[in-house]
Amino acid sequence: MSAAGPEIERLIQLLARLPGLGPRSARRAALQMLQKRDTVMKPLAEALGEAAEKIKACSICGNLDVTDPCAVCSEPRRDDSVICVVETVGDLWALERAGAFKGRYHVLGGVLSALDGVGPEDLNIAGLAERAASSQTKEIILALNATVDGQTTAHFLSDKLAGAGVEVTTLARGVPVGGELDYLDDGTLSAAFRSRRPA
Amino acid sequence: MSAAGPEIERLIQLLARLPGLGPRSARRAALQMLQKRDTVMKPLAEALGEAAEKIKACSICGNLDVTDPCAVCSEPRRDDSVICVVETVGDLWALERAGAFKGRYHVLGGVLSALDGVGPEDLNIAGLAERAASSQTKEIILALNATVDGQTTAHFLSDKLAGAGVEVTTLARGVPVGGELDYLDDGTLSAAFRSRRPA
Repeated sequence: MSAAGPEIERLIQLLARLPGLGPRSARRAALQMLQKRDTVMKPLAEALGEAAEKIKACSICGNLDVTDPCAVCSEPRRDDSVICVVETVGDLWALERAGAFKGRYHVLGGVLSALDGVGPEDLNIAGLAERAASSQTKEIILALNATVDGQTTAHFLSDKLAGAGVEVTTLARGVPVGGELDYLDDGTLSAAFRSRRPA
Repeated sequence: MSAAGPEIERLIQLLARLPGLGPRSARRAALQMLQKRDTVMKPLAEALGEAAEKIKACSICGNLDVTDPCAVCSEPRRDDSVICVVETVGDLWALERAGAFKGRYHVLGGVLSALDGVGPEDLNIAGLAERAASSQTKEIILALNATVDGQTTAHFLSDKLAGAGVEVTTLARGVPVGGELDYLDDGTLSAAFRSRRPA
């Protein structure tokens, strides 16, 4: 039996489903919120309800936003000739935070995985093929994770897009900024040597 | 600029205020919730709103519950003669989870702290003195944290309750279950030696 009533237990269980919060930190979070109900708890309840209601997937790129097309797709000053393909919306946000790219995006919604039973029909590949066929698209950058599944998917897409008359590129492999050679894996070191360039 | 609209950014900022969630994990949590909106996001929004609305502090012991008096205070089969004094509601819940105690509780709402400017008038000490004076109260267990502030507060309360005609006790100090001597601090080891008992 717990001293916290069923309402609090239910709240704790729901909080514990969030990534990064276990049962113990969910309990701490619930308790802290109950002590700050006007500054944290009520605004969070409203923000969650509003987000669940209003936010939807963009029908062009798959990003999540309150508008469709999303803010990135409807921004007029971005370069329509380049499409950056990412696995998830989180990757899209990471690239936007870095501010490294000013073209358009395409969210696949995952990667091919024989183990998890994810085939080409489970990803938004048809939409990508369609966008690649458009006359304004000149380049497609495959910004997939450097994992086995990510690279398998990149190969698959690169084959698929071969006849579409667009240039297909991938992100460079090499030593990350701030990376110490001693701590890098062999694959990264080999890739950095193979792609070496004039200093 | 972020690809996530202001609604999502606000949600992320509110989530990042929870203990245990930083900005990065708050973003992951927001993203995961947007993908599970019917199973996680909407129920959480409702549970938060409901909790903020309904849950209040018990006027007897200070526990948080939807009823006042709380479920612990209104449970008829608990022992009215023993009151366990704890710092926070979280401590009360921890003791209830352990199931170690079947009396009543009293939540102080913190500890005396010269550094943080917490004096006796900031804690629920008047309420405790009143409950101690009641004829049915026989024992008061000070279950405060074994920190400097916790122990200062325990001494203060023990002085304060000296004339009330109740027995005032504190939790035992010693080797925790599963504790290895080599990893315990000197204070705990000394306390365990001083309080040694027949095997």
